[in-house]
This record gives sequence, C-alpha cells and structure tokens, in this order.
Amino acid sequence: MTQAQTPAQDHAAALISRLETCEPEVRAFTTYDPVRIRADAATACSGPLSGLSVGVKDIIDMAGYVTAHGSPIYDGNMARADAACVTQLRQAGALCAGKTVTTEFAFFRPGPTVNPHDPTRTPGGSSSGSAAAVAAGVIDIGLASQTAASLTRPASYCGTVGFKPSYGRYAAAGVKSLAPSFDTLGTLTRDVATAALADAVLKGPVAAPVILTPTAPERVLLCRTPHWGEADDSTRMVVEKAASLFAAHVPVVEQDMSAFADAAALHITIMSYEAAQALAWEYTARHNLLSPQIAGLLEAGRTISYATYRAALEQAEQLRDQMAALATPGTVLLAPAAPGEAPRLSEGTGSPVFSRVWTLLRLPTVTLPGLVGATGLPVGVQLLAAFGADEALLDHAAWAETILPARPVPQLHVGQNA
Amino acid sequence: MTQAQTPAQDHAAALISRLETCEPEVRAFTTYDPVRIRADAATACSGPLSGLSVGVKDIIDMAGYVTAHGSPIYDGNMARADAACVTQLRQAGALCAGKTVTTEFAFFRPGPTVNPHDPTRTPGGSSSGSAAAVAAGVIDIGLASQTAASLTRPASYCGTVGFKPSYGRYAAAGVKSLAPSFDTLGTLTRDVATAALADAVLKGPVAAPVILTPTAPERVLLCRTPHWGEADDSTRMVVEKAASLFAAHVPVVEQDMSAFADAAALHITIMSYEAAQALAWEYTARHNLLSPQIAGLLEAGRTISYATYRAALEQAEQLRDQMAALATPGTVLLAPAAPGEAPRLSEGTGSPVFSRVWTLLRLPTVTLPGLVGATGLPVGVQLLAAFGADEALLDHAAWAETILPARPVPQLHVGQNA
Repeated sequence: MTQAQTPAQDHAAALISRLETCEPEVRAFTTYDPVRIRADAATACSGPLSGLSVGVKDIIDMAGYVTAHGSPIYDGNMARADAACVTQLRQAGALCAGKTVTTEFAFFRPGPTVNPHDPTRTPGGSSSGSAAAVAAGVIDIGLASQTAASLTRPASYCGTVGFKPSYGRYAAAGVKSLAPSFDTLGTLTRDVATAALADAVLKGPVAAPVILTPTAPERVLLCRTPHWGEADDSTRMVVEKAASLFAAHVPVVEQDMSAFADAAALHITIMSYEAAQALAWEYTARHNLLSPQIAGLLEAGRTISYATYRAALEQAEQLRDQMAALATPGTVLLAPAAPGEAPRLSEGTGSPVFSRVWTLLRLPTVTLPGLVGATGLPVGVQLLAAFGADEALLDHAAWAETILPARPVPQLHVGQNA
Repeated sequence: MTQAQTPAQDHAAALISRLETCEPEVRAFTTYDPVRIRADAATACSGPLSGLSVGVKDIIDMAGYVTAHGSPIYDGNMARADAACVTQLRQAGALCAGKTVTTEFAFFRPGPTVNPHDPTRTPGGSSSGSAAAVAAGVIDIGLASQTAASLTRPASYCGTVGFKPSYGRYAAAGVKSLAPSFDTLGTLTRDVATAALADAVLKGPVAAPVILTPTAPERVLLCRTPHWGEADDSTRMVVEKAASLFAAHVPVVEQDMSAFADAAALHITIMSYEAAQALAWEYTARHNLLSPQIAGLLEAGRTISYATYRAALEQAEQLRDQMAALATPGTVLLAPAAPGEAPRLSEGTGSPVFSRVWTLLRLPTVTLPGLVGATGLPVGVQLLAAFGADEALLDHAAWAETILPARPVPQLHVGQNA
C-alpha cells in the first residue's frame, strides 16, 4: 500500500524525477542530492515561490554543498552558509535542486553541460548548467551571474529568458567575485513572469509585492552596437525580425552607438585588472591548477597599470552618463544577445562581444527567446532600459514576450513546462 | 651554543616577542600562532613590505586560520584561501601576525580588546584589534574595513593613522560583506608613509611604485559637518587646533555642510537594508546566536521598502555630485574623526556619527593622530579629498603629519616604533 504524498513530497519527487531523467544527457548539475531535496521540501517555507525549484550556479554558496567554482582548486570546498540569494529564495518558498555547472571561475573553461537543443553544442557560459536545466524544464529558476556575458549568452543559446538586473540590485554575499565593478547576479527562467517573481524576492531582505503589467514601451531604440560586423546571419536575422515585429506596435528607431565604440575595450581592461586582484590567491598559491584561459586573463590584468585602470573607470562613468541621456523613461533598447547560434562544444562557450558594452554600462537587460537562427537553434534578443528601471524593463519585456514567437522546445526536455 | 639567526628568523622572533608581551593586556588578536609566523617568515617573499608585519581583521580570510567574524556562528570556520589583500601583502614581503579582533560582523558588539592608551577604554570598533595592535607597536600594518566608522573611529581613539581609501580601491575578495554600497578595506599604521607603502601594494594586482611627496594643499575646507553639536569639547578643541596649525601655512576656509544634513540618515537607511540582505542566512538560520545590536540592525533593514532604499541610493548619488564640486584638486577637507576621546569599555565602541556622511560620499580619508583631548587621550582629525584622489590625499596627509604634534605614545606598548 502506498502512502498518500503531501504536496511537498510530490514537489520533491517530481523534481528528483526530472533530474534523474535529464541529467545523464544534459549534465547541468555538479551536485544534486535526492535526500537533501526531500528534506528541504519537508521543511520548506510557504511563500510567493512555493512550488518552484531553483538551481544554484556553482560560484554561489549553499550550506552543506561543495562550492567548487568550476575549479579543482576548490574540490571539496564545503559551504557553511547559504549565500544571501539562496536564503532569500528559500524563505520565499523555493526548493533548491542543487548546484549547477559553471565554467572555471565564471570565465571561459567549460564544464560538461550540453545544450538541450543540440547536445553537440555549448549551452554557453559561464552560467551553463542553470541555463541548460531551465531550458530542459528540470528547474524553474536558474541562479546565474554575469561579469561579461555569462547570463545573456547562455540565455540566448538555450532559448530561455535571462534577466541580469541593474548592477548591484541583488545581494552578492556568498557569491565568488571575478570583477567587482561588473559582477551581477541574475536569473534564468522560461518566462518573464517567473523572472519578475524572483526579482520581487531577490531585490530586498523581505519579498516585495509583484506587480507585473505587460506594457508596450513608448519607443524602441534598435542598437546594432559597434560590433554588428561580428554578428552572423542568424543574429542579424533575429534582431531585424524582432525590430519588425515590435515596429507593428511601437516606433522603432535606429540608434547610432558609435560613441560607445570603446566600451568593449574598457570592459576588458577593467575586468582583467580586477580579476587579477580578486583571484590573487589562486594565481599565486595554486597556479598549476589554473586553466590557460583564466591564467591568460590574470596575466593580462597584471600588465595593466593603475593609471590605465583608473582612466578606464572614469571613461566608463562618462559612458554611463551618455547612456542615461538615451535610455529615458519609456524607452527600451533592442540589441543582439550573442553573435549567432550556439557554437559546437569543441569551440568553447561563445563570444561575449555583444554583452561587454551593456555590462560596462550596468544597465538591466532581459534576453528573450522565441526566434531561431539559420539551423533552427534558438537565438535570443536582448532588451535593456535605464539603470535602476528594472521594474519598467520587466513590464516591457512581458509585453515583448507576447509579440515574439513562443520559446522553442528543446530536443532534451522533461515535463509540460519545458 | 646558539645558532646565528637569519633576518627572517629575527623578524619572526621579534614579532612573536611583541605579541607575547602585549597580548595578555591588549587582547588585540583572536588567533596568532608562533609556529605559523616562523614558517611564514622562512618562506616570505622579498618586496617593498619586507620587514613589516600585518594584522588581519577577523572578517578577512587567511588560509589555515579561522575567520570568525566576531560571531559564535562562525566558530571554527577555517579559511581555505587567503583574501586577495592578504595575498597582495604577502607577495610584497609582509609577514602576517594573525587575526585581529573585530566587533560582531564589523558592527557594534565589542570583542575583548582594550585601548593601549587606557585599558579601561574602548579601542573603538569595528577594527578594534588592528587599531590597538598598531598603536601598541605589535604590528606595522593593521588591515581594517569601514562600512560606517569602523576604521576612522578606532584610529582616532588609539592615536594611529587610518587610511580608508576611495570606495572600491582595494579588492574585497575574501572579506565578509556588511553593506556592499559602503564596505571599504583600508589600513591602520603609525605613519602616513607606511599607509602609502601598503597602498601601492593593495591598489592593484602588482605593486606600484610609491612616490609619496609631502605636499601642502592649496586650501583646507574646515567641515564641522551638520553633527558639530554632537562633538564634545575634546573633539572641538582638536579640530580647531588642527585648523589653526594648518592656517599658519595654507588658507583654511569654513565650509557650510548644511546641504549634507540628510547624509547620515541616508547612510543608515542604505546600510540597514543592505545588511539585512548580506546577513540573510545568519538572520534566518542562526538567529539565536546574533547579539541584540546586530539583530536590531537587520530588523530595521527589513522594515524598509525597496522604493525607500532606491530613493536613498539616488539621493546619495546626488550628494556625491555636490561634493565633487567642492572637493576640487588641491583641496583637502578637515573634519572631526570621532565625537571625543575613547569611551569607557562599558559604554561600547563609540558613535559613528562623524563618519557616516563621508562613507556615504565614498571619499578617501586619512585620520591623523597627534592631538589629545581633555584627559590626555588621543583624538584624531580626518583629512579627505575627492573620490579617486587617493595619492594626492596621502601627499597632503604626509605634509599635515609634519604640522601636527607627534603621535602620543600609549601606556601599553612595545619596541621603539610604538
């Protein structure tokens, strides 16, 4: 005779079943533990995220789980406490599934995760596991972070919604730092409504009310960016398609971005310098365990003078002021999210070029799925708004989601929500 | 027969001797380990800080030492890695003495440290142990941090130099966060030259050249601040004395600060909100181990709405812009560092009122010793300059150090450098 299950037991059982179905192929998790999932479900809080499951990028601490930062340097590095964001999500009722794969220190060396739309392709990095697990329908919310393009790019490649809020909006306590001028915590979800639910929880110590009102912007500025030449046909096609779909409803205006031509280079200077400081111990005391990719970043940072770094910080501030004049209330910026479809696994996690400028500017950005590239794989577009206008951006993104086609369903997926 | 000692062995032996002499009375350290000190000395790098010793505030990780954050929640919390700042100091040749006492989570609940000038008085908080150990001559550099007044106030009470650089200047990786909009790492030293030496090491991944040139400012703005009414006679006396000493050399002008009357309240709003996020796990999962002081801060933060917090952030940005117009190149601001002499131990670690405005504004500040209050205890003054003008501020502070009287020697001290 089978005992009747409580809703919490059902929730845990369904999550474990999805993990066990998908993980052998997708490999999105570094750790998940059915015993812990059941125990957490049994003691879960009740709140706005009840019934939702979360994957925690493995640069974020979760008590009793190893935080390995995608590096053998941190093998067996057991976390004593939950990061602030994990506590916030748990307090709001969410159930934590486990730790999701990150590239090494949220930079370039990939983990084992594959793209659920095509297992020969990268899910993108660095938030690889969170993006793949959300796309495959295993979890509802993937905690992710971005220092260059680590959230927007996997969202684009995996066909999920990606919300990187304004710099500093979510608490970074318990999250490994790479370049503190840019490091930003955010979420990967299957729809804007779930991103807004999580936002209301993550933006403060107590969950705020969610009032998501799909709202057309007053105008869309089409920002091809100074890097349009690096976009392949798939990206050009989806950005222009999105612009034409939006233009049926609201004015879409081309925005010259030549004033921001130096932004990507400034981003690289600041990120390299700060990463060489943030990872000083790893560089010095564990050099032999670093990949050539991250060692190269840190060595580049070590060649930059303080004067050069400081000048880059000041130029970045000036560009932020210039952008503030463009991103007025009611305005949404439309821009490429990645240079094309997901590259083959052997080619790495893809180019961050289309996010560097926006991360430097610290704007909130929502990547939206729905469009596909030349071979039918997802290619996202990103919408941005003024610094601090996160609620308005989510409202506009919820509107845009109704204009764009439905999110493509991946080859590897589970459940009705996938 | 005694074997001749190497300079490294001599350095370690002298440091251990100073620790063993002073610690029974001053109680500045949570942990020091003669075996580790000797081992570290034997393998020390050679660099600009060779021969100098460092105390590491116990919210900062040092590999193989417990980081307890002044809280029983973190009893036995062994650090796996050195914080970035510890690696940087070690790479520059400094010898780490151990972990210094912090108040609980760098807020108000005091540790056991006493003021070396009067063991019935507080050393100030939260960087209590670093300040006391530097004042007593045990170590040369105390790593410290400030979110409200945690560096400037102990520097004032203990009669040391305190350098809190511009917000963000030193890497925070491996340092516990309290309120990320304000958390700033800095140093406590016995002279400005040592602060400048450490600054050249801490401001980037590779030590920069130190070019400290004592330079008179073009003008001094005397900022009594909107809180002058909270300064007791000792503080009024030393600020006016410093102003008159400087006025013999450079123009000293009274600066009305009424435009900044709301700054301290804005600081409290932002700090409370962010602390309630940063310490969300401690508040939720270990509530019974929190002091009433920190629990009160977090509870206050939980009553603040996101809209109120966000408005405070925006007002803070406006005040920073207003200050940028005042703190022009060549200008130094002179302000109180604390409301008076060090309070009695039973009265806590003192009021942060005279630092809230400056921490909100993110300006670099140097606290200088030399003057004393009504009962002969040290009372510092602080000099500030524009955001980012740290090198110029150190040059001006090195000049001011020659104008002010010599640092008072504490009752409890060791060695010629005390």
